[in-house]
Amino acid sequence: MDLYFDNAATTRLSDEALEAYIKTEREFFANPSSVHSEGIRAKKELERIRGSIADAMHIPSSSLFFTSGATESIASVFSSLLFQEPGRVIISRIEHEAVASWLPILKRYGWDTVTLKAKGGIVDPEELEELLTPDTKLVAVMAVNNVTGAVEDIKALVNVVRSYEKKNGRRIFFFSDSVQALGKIDYDITELGIDGASFSAHKINGPRGIGMLYLRSPESFRPLAPAGGQEKGKRGGTENLPAIAALEKAVLMWTGNRESENRRIGEINRYIRNNLSSLGLEILSPENASPYIISFVSPLPSEVYVRMLSDKGIAASSGSACSNNAKGEGEKILLGMGIRSSKARNAVRISFSGSTDMESAEALIKAVKEIGNG
Amino acid sequence: MDLYFDNAATTRLSDEALEAYIKTEREFFANPSSVHSEGIRAKKELERIRGSIADAMHIPSSSLFFTSGATESIASVFSSLLFQEPGRVIISRIEHEAVASWLPILKRYGWDTVTLKAKGGIVDPEELEELLTPDTKLVAVMAVNNVTGAVEDIKALVNVVRSYEKKNGRRIFFFSDSVQALGKIDYDITELGIDGASFSAHKINGPRGIGMLYLRSPESFRPLAPAGGQEKGKRGGTENLPAIAALEKAVLMWTGNRESENRRIGEINRYIRNNLSSLGLEILSPENASPYIISFVSPLPSEVYVRMLSDKGIAASSGSACSNNAKGEGEKILLGMGIRSSKARNAVRISFSGSTDMESAEALIKAVKEIGNG
Repeated sequence: MDLYFDNAATTRLSDEALEAYIKTEREFFANPSSVHSEGIRAKKELERIRGSIADAMHIPSSSLFFTSGATESIASVFSSLLFQEPGRVIISRIEHEAVASWLPILKRYGWDTVTLKAKGGIVDPEELEELLTPDTKLVAVMAVNNVTGAVEDIKALVNVVRSYEKKNGRRIFFFSDSVQALGKIDYDITELGIDGASFSAHKINGPRGIGMLYLRSPESFRPLAPAGGQEKGKRGGTENLPAIAALEKAVLMWTGNRESENRRIGEINRYIRNNLSSLGLEILSPENASPYIISFVSPLPSEVYVRMLSDKGIAASSGSACSNNAKGEGEKILLGMGIRSSKARNAVRISFSGSTDMESAEALIKAVKEIGNG
Repeated sequence: MDLYFDNAATTRLSDEALEAYIKTEREFFANPSSVHSEGIRAKKELERIRGSIADAMHIPSSSLFFTSGATESIASVFSSLLFQEPGRVIISRIEHEAVASWLPILKRYGWDTVTLKAKGGIVDPEELEELLTPDTKLVAVMAVNNVTGAVEDIKALVNVVRSYEKKNGRRIFFFSDSVQALGKIDYDITELGIDGASFSAHKINGPRGIGMLYLRSPESFRPLAPAGGQEKGKRGGTENLPAIAALEKAVLMWTGNRESENRRIGEINRYIRNNLSSLGLEILSPENASPYIISFVSPLPSEVYVRMLSDKGIAASSGSACSNNAKGEGEKILLGMGIRSSKARNAVRISFSGSTDMESAEALIKAVKEIGNG
């Protein structure tokens, strides 16, 4: 029984991933950019892994770049705008701070930054249509929200952008932070038609410090600084081969046939939702949300409630964990959805992984009942 | 006997570092920003390690930030300039591309970018004095050059800047990329008086994907995007605790009493230099260079020579490994030193670590003799 319900913050590293990390570190320790035989072997292994992951994600390997994590993948895309003439950038109000925190620097350099509402957690394609302008350069809407699990209709949003492009004749980069999507919902980059996406290994039982950037047209992408020129000039820094090998195991575990596993998590999700509702606790996650995330309104300020759960051995979250002021960020996203601040302040997130089972769910509900109204 | 002579590109992960990685991953798997008890434990461990590393480096722990590596540490400092009014930036001509590649974006935004010669590999404090202007905002000179091992007189350079500041009344940020310095030469940040420095774990037997940024006055530092707000708002992204724990082992191994070990490497260095010289091969590394790096002019184009060494089981480098076009970058740095291109094209770098011994050195010289003029 696993009482760790904070998998949207980070997951446990799988044994397979750790094993791959150790094995690759020992067998391919050289710098993949070195020209001696050890370096060449390391480079080959790097490219084998890139191909394997790209295959699993149904994308060309030439569109896949390894970074230190989703935050860096996002930074790479947003900072690259600084080489372009200023225009409009549109992001949703429920983006992670890794995206939202780029607006001040863009504003400073004359960009027109606009945000999309997300009523009930969902961004409305019609609203996007109204906000598009001839000088819009980038639209960013995450695939799955990290606080509520809301699944955005990326395909519809992309279609709006593509139609506008046809009329207007200029390309718009559609970016989708996909950290909570890969393997957890029905998600296919090519089918969605996005131009860029960010991924993190440690949200899918891979290691910290490694992530991916998908670029549909890398040839037209100029990073702010190529540094050492690794990753075909798109991302500088010595390639983290052991972590990339571990990431491969993580991606393989979370792609392929996920149906029965995601259905199992869906049943656990349903059980928890029903029980929370029976206890009179409002669910903030939309009906169509990722099965891996449930956000609900607790009877107490979320930090207090999370600590009370923690005292019972249960790890939950007061929102996104990715902040010194975690509660603040979760709250901001919920407010961005149009949820009243009195509710947002009490929001608690529980999130699942492969090691979550029905027994864990029962223990959670038992704890929620015991806590009651505090 | 270790025939890996490419330690300036990357070193082997030590057993202690790998053990710490695995142990910390298992014992502190939660997100240090999570507020449940597992998160709090992880956060405590993170801060314990920060204190331990800061102590070993004789700096306040509040000045130390964990990043994904030196490239990111450098990017953090250079990109932060984009929030300032443009002025002059002065860097040496022998900086790594992780530094040098920032100039185009700074130029685009009106910065006056100026480079310092490095005759014989050494930047001249007098030249720096002449280039300082009232609007100079940043000076960057690396502590130890990655191609030649040249040790720069950072203290004298900082003194020049501090004197100018006194006259001029405005602060200048002195940055020193210190990737090849920590533990390998006499190096003390506080004594040098620099404002910022970058470090990489994998150059000192730590893991890939983790590095450090030293900021003397973090309170006056604004990153381009704080993302999730981790590292007191200076560096976003989930803290890579297992890698940070491994980094601690690496730093502890390379700090403290290094005298006898560095003297041992110095003897190996002397043996190799003398033998190469006897064979008529010119040494490009200055006399005062780091004992861990020797650059010499081979009789053949460096890539050819490196492959011939590789065929004999010896891993060397044609310059810096950190580039798709590694030879290009090594060459650029050597040209920046004022070395003729005919020589620069034939430059070969050999670099040492703790596992290099006299037997390795003898095998290297034997191979050099066997190759002769090709």
